[in-house]
Amino acid sequence: MLIMIYLSAADIRSTVSMCDVITAIDQAYEQYEKDSFTMPARMQVNQGGNTLLAMPCFTKDSIGTKLVTLFPENKSHPAIHGVVVLKSGTTGEIQAILDGSFITGFRTGAIGGSAIRSLSPETSSTLAIIGTGVQGLYQTIAACSVRPISDIYLYNRTPERIPSFIKQVKEFIGETIRIHTVGSSEEAVNSAEIIITTTTSKDPVIPNNSNLFRNKLLVGIGSFQPSMQEFPEAVYYNTDQVFIDSLDAIHESGDIITPLKNGWLTKDSIISFSSHLSSRNKVMPGNGKSVIFKSTGMALFDVVVAADIYEKAVKKGIGTKLE
Amino acid sequence: MLIMIYLSAADIRSTVSMCDVITAIDQAYEQYEKDSFTMPARMQVNQGGNTLLAMPCFTKDSIGTKLVTLFPENKSHPAIHGVVVLKSGTTGEIQAILDGSFITGFRTGAIGGSAIRSLSPETSSTLAIIGTGVQGLYQTIAACSVRPISDIYLYNRTPERIPSFIKQVKEFIGETIRIHTVGSSEEAVNSAEIIITTTTSKDPVIPNNSNLFRNKLLVGIGSFQPSMQEFPEAVYYNTDQVFIDSLDAIHESGDIITPLKNGWLTKDSIISFSSHLSSRNKVMPGNGKSVIFKSTGMALFDVVVAADIYEKAVKKGIGTKLE
Repeated sequence: MLIMIYLSAADIRSTVSMCDVITAIDQAYEQYEKDSFTMPARMQVNQGGNTLLAMPCFTKDSIGTKLVTLFPENKSHPAIHGVVVLKSGTTGEIQAILDGSFITGFRTGAIGGSAIRSLSPETSSTLAIIGTGVQGLYQTIAACSVRPISDIYLYNRTPERIPSFIKQVKEFIGETIRIHTVGSSEEAVNSAEIIITTTTSKDPVIPNNSNLFRNKLLVGIGSFQPSMQEFPEAVYYNTDQVFIDSLDAIHESGDIITPLKNGWLTKDSIISFSSHLSSRNKVMPGNGKSVIFKSTGMALFDVVVAADIYEKAVKKGIGTKLE
Repeated sequence: MLIMIYLSAADIRSTVSMCDVITAIDQAYEQYEKDSFTMPARMQVNQGGNTLLAMPCFTKDSIGTKLVTLFPENKSHPAIHGVVVLKSGTTGEIQAILDGSFITGFRTGAIGGSAIRSLSPETSSTLAIIGTGVQGLYQTIAACSVRPISDIYLYNRTPERIPSFIKQVKEFIGETIRIHTVGSSEEAVNSAEIIITTTTSKDPVIPNNSNLFRNKLLVGIGSFQPSMQEFPEAVYYNTDQVFIDSLDAIHESGDIITPLKNGWLTKDSIISFSSHLSSRNKVMPGNGKSVIFKSTGMALFDVVVAADIYEKAVKKGIGTKLE
């Protein structure tokens, strides 16, 4: 008898660690590389300025659909609400309904963590976070899960947000980590080996100075539309390879579209991260070069992660039983 | 604070009556007529012979998405599994997750009930059901909810299914109703004022004899694909109007496509049932003429019905609270 459960954000947090989700993300890349999934372009429905996105995906074991509503005018409620419906890939039965906002946030953190684990030296201990929203938090947790981070350099356009961010980081990671609030993104970038940007800015959020980026890993998380761009031109000067989590990034993110259009980047230097993972080649920042990873996400990640959470939650007896 | 709940089939049954759902269906027709909704063509994803359908719809108050999996090779499990995710049209917050198979079945019954309430004499007391599957049951319940049905004539290609069907009908409607199992669809049609077909047959399931249908209401529920056809040519001889629940029926059902192609039916005689309801014209079988109603369903029905169930369930304290 199949167990059907609801998993809230709190349920998911008590079911899986960030390391578990990073492992699931790596498994999703394996499926991506083997093309053992079916993922159509997402469906978008608009009415009165509000949007529903339906993002289904068949993996080799599961069928998942993420449904997200965007209500940009929401004042007293979050603008984004999401749910993931997970079904058995063997029978089509419903297995779980999961908090979609939490899965999205946490798995996006894990996408960063997976990239950092493969593309940065094992000894990296300094991290810059540009943008201290929810995703800044999950990226921080993920980076600290895979590297011995001792110092975090935070920059946010609105510094008022930083104290609550620090409080949350310490709740997750502990009090011993040193957190530095800096007055410019330049200072943050200059101080760290790993730089993560998590804004939806339409203009670069780090300075256009190529010397700042030498021997560093840059992880771009925020820009998911053509109009958004976090990285300046100079980021692309010292790099041979830009890794992307999904080939859709080539059409979706201003951090790929604009560099290609302006000739800062050639198509040949854009590499699917799944092919990198499967090749077992080693790519690291060094000899003056930087490495860039750019994520735009995809439903395949949500489904593989949701299926892993479901399996673990059933074993641990976590979740609200339905039926 | 919004209440988020899961509603199983049993929860839904204890929340709403068939009459409630018929009223909700009439409200959905009002929205259909006013065009106050956004409903794209359904999204279909296929892998390995299995299918996922995603059917989103914005109504004026809600956002609903029905997700249905079709696993035709399922042996020990039902081939179809469904869920409806209901979100607030005001904030996008998730309100409810509802058993999609039960909603689909019950609201399809109510579509028949709504048609019978408008298109048959108030005194109609005899009903023929061709096809005694789940939908035959819901159609029977719906017909008995809106008309003083005293006699039901049942025909099914495989008569073994009929005893369990009768048992279920009596559970819902009571022991006093007279149920007649007949040996041919002709006998069933001949005995009743209201005829409902609920099969997925590719060939007509009632005889090609126009005299059988005079002064009767025919409700076609089963054919939802171009290759399916329940009604024979003669059905269209005595009728001036064929009502359809959704304009999509013109492209979806073999009971509209084939008659149009063969000239048994003209486009002018096909009328959207929502426009009929809003016109308050009276159309009844009589003077030798029959009336035809054909349903193929649409996501708008699911969402309006789900929103009504949610509202009533919250008031009654029914459902599994989530979060």
